[in-house]
Amino acid sequence: MKIAVFRKEHFNAAHRLFNPNWNHEKNDEVFGKCNNPNYHGHNYELVVRLVGEPDPSTGYVYDMKELSKLIKKHVIDIFDHKNLNLDTPYFQHSNPTAENIAVVIYKLLRKEIENQYELKVTLYETERNFVEYPA
Amino acid sequence: MKIAVFRKEHFNAAHRLFNPNWNHEKNDEVFGKCNNPNYHGHNYELVVRLVGEPDPSTGYVYDMKELSKLIKKHVIDIFDHKNLNLDTPYFQHSNPTAENIAVVIYKLLRKEIENQYELKVTLYETERNFVEYPA
Amino acid sequence: MKIAVFRKEHFNAAHRLFNPNWNHEKNDEVFGKCNNPNYHGHNYELVVRLVGEPDPSTGYVYDMKELSKLIKKHVIDIFDHKNLNLDTPYFQHSNPTAENIAVVIYKLLRKEIENQYELKVTLYETERNFVEYPA
Amino acid sequence: MKIAVFRKEHFNAAHRLFNPNWNHEKNDEVFGKCNNPNYHGHNYELVVRLVGEPDPSTGYVYDMKELSKLIKKHVIDIFDHKNLNLDTPYFQHSNPTAENIAVVIYKLLRKEIENQYELKVTLYETERNFVEYPA
Amino acid sequence: MKIAVFRKEHFNAAHRLFNPNWNHEKNDEVFGKCNNPNYHGHNYELVVRLVGEPDPSTGYVYDMKELSKLIKKHVIDIFDHKNLNLDTPYFQHSNPTAENIAVVIYKLLRKEIENQYELKVTLYETERNFVEYPA
Amino acid sequence: MKIAVFRKEHFNAAHRLFNPNWNHEKNDEVFGKCNNPNYHGHNYELVVRLVGEPDPSTGYVYDMKELSKLIKKHVIDIFDHKNLNLDTPYFQHSNPTAENIAVVIYKLLRKEIENQYELKVTLYETERNFVEYPA
Repeated sequence: MKIAVFRKEHFNAAHRLFNPNWNHEKNDEVFGKCNNPNYHGHNYELVVRLVGEPDPSTGYVYDMKELSKLIKKHVIDIFDHKNLNLDTPYFQHSNPTAENIAVVIYKLLRKEIENQYELKVTLYETERNFVEYPA
Repeated sequence: MKIAVFRKEHFNAAHRLFNPNWNHEKNDEVFGKCNNPNYHGHNYELVVRLVGEPDPSTGYVYDMKELSKLIKKHVIDIFDHKNLNLDTPYFQHSNPTAENIAVVIYKLLRKEIENQYELKVTLYETERNFVEYPA
Repeated sequence: MKIAVFRKEHFNAAHRLFNPNWNHEKNDEVFGKCNNPNYHGHNYELVVRLVGEPDPSTGYVYDMKELSKLIKKHVIDIFDHKNLNLDTPYFQHSNPTAENIAVVIYKLLRKEIENQYELKVTLYETERNFVEYPA
Repeated sequence: MKIAVFRKEHFNAAHRLFNPNWNHEKNDEVFGKCNNPNYHGHNYELVVRLVGEPDPSTGYVYDMKELSKLIKKHVIDIFDHKNLNLDTPYFQHSNPTAENIAVVIYKLLRKEIENQYELKVTLYETERNFVEYPA
Repeated sequence: MKIAVFRKEHFNAAHRLFNPNWNHEKNDEVFGKCNNPNYHGHNYELVVRLVGEPDPSTGYVYDMKELSKLIKKHVIDIFDHKNLNLDTPYFQHSNPTAENIAVVIYKLLRKEIENQYELKVTLYETERNFVEYPA
Repeated sequence: MKIAVFRKEHFNAAHRLFNPNWNHEKNDEVFGKCNNPNYHGHNYELVVRLVGEPDPSTGYVYDMKELSKLIKKHVIDIFDHKNLNLDTPYFQHSNPTAENIAVVIYKLLRKEIENQYELKVTLYETERNFVEYPA
């Protein structure tokens, strides 16, 4: 009896998208306004999905209070009110696109969530642009 | 040509989470504020998903007016403005967690929806905590 | 240069609406399902509005982090995961309707917010039913 | 490393649901208010989901600016502020139900999106009625 | 002790904006896509606000169940799944703009709501365009 | 017959809150995470409210297409995907708090909107923190 449980959290961060191997014109062509050298930012909404079987003694697949604490400790405290390019170690060689941020968050959480639970991450960069990993 | 159709309904209910086989300290440790003996409550949002093929004479996979009536009769009328622990027969031996409520709703609807339709239930306990069954 | 600032918080609670001076029939006629003796519940959303002038040294009318802490201490900690009728002292002689809850919250906060700030409270019982005090 | 990316767009349109092979009574019985001969309308919200692998030089699975332009050109410009029955060629022999509109949108976009990307369309007719294709 | 209470309802309708005293070019210039001769449509969200004093025997300013019924009878039943230009008598000599619809709804409700209550109507044509009457 | 019309737009920006006359400890104490030297960011939602009388030839208080263009030209193009501290001239001597940003936006729009219309600006920094000017 597999059930999915979801917990939604949020963080606010600045970022910039550009490829240091490209010249300014190419970066502007590809990334447009997202290439602003002084950064811009977003209110990110994060939804974490775990799949498992409910524990008969609690009725929980996973205690949402614990999942919330775990997301806060391993994701929100690292990304919230930060510059994703400069203040985190994860985007030295890749862009902090929603895609790449979602993969980083997945890896951070995968280490903390027991293997018996399937894990999926959905990240909203805006209400109209969002990503899901793994698809 | 399989298409999924979704109908969203809501109900308001009180509940309490605890395990009668545990002492007070253990219940508080596990369920925290959800163990309040006088209950607390939620505005539950329910999304029902059916998968089937559209009827060429209507263009409907399932008439949403009929699905809404069916959910109201078999779910909302039983849970809305009720105490899930005391006023329904489903949580005598299990907790009315979102996980367990979703499974009960699934079983109630599965009896009413023809087998040709796949059925899935998503239940929002709050905007930030929700579950899906089957996963 | 008067500016209004708003902070949104939420709490989940159980309640029951009835008038002990009326018989069962009259209570059912007036309060319908809200008179369920075993209670029902809601996810309440609370919006607190303060009006004042921004402090030139910060650009804040009121520090939102402080307003959030103050609402949590004086409102959320008292109402969240509680039975409004049984677990709080405010509805011994009146119903915990959205109207009456909003007035209680206003009075609790008015004592904590300096008089130089105008105060208003909006309380959502559901997405479709809400109140504002003072009007 | 498959990632899903989503883009949300919207359009406003009028439509009517009826089967020309049925008499008025049968149409009213099946389609109810949706059979109003002078049409009614909706604010449709459209979510397009592509699955692919991120390009290491950009961090994008698909450039959302390009996906937005493509949806605007091939879907929104055709459906927005239109009468779906009269102003588009797609519902001459079928009803503009959410199901059928979603399939039309899928086919319009499938031609424009390279085959390496999986494609899915979710269409909200109202906040409470929506469909997904393919399921 | 004046309190405002709000009730939210919705309806779906088709409309067209044009001025019959103007030629086609002028109408297109002013109304653009809203002048589509075959109509387009919207999911309208309506918020009705009443201001009054709570009744001490109930704690209600106005019974929301009654307000909901009243809005359904006098507004929703007239506008829902209708063509505002053709199926209602209110827009023979004026356009069904959000502004004009809100004034019509205000007048319809003002007749039904006792004078002791202040009345205000907010109408959302889309999530991004809305009006309030009286201002 | 005064009616209020509202238009909602959005922009994404980076910012930092600090007072250059204060030392690091004092800035951290007052602004906390908002003082991150490398900036953080938000998805700002902006609601512009105009009050006026409807033009009988159109039924519009103000053409929402024109209001949208005007907001885009005079506000969004200046703030969207920018660093509010570094890329705009408005926060050299004050902090880009929601309060101060709202006042700047009000002044930018007040110059463009004829005096016959009352103007008010609501700015959402997050879903839970927002401001209104004038109050």
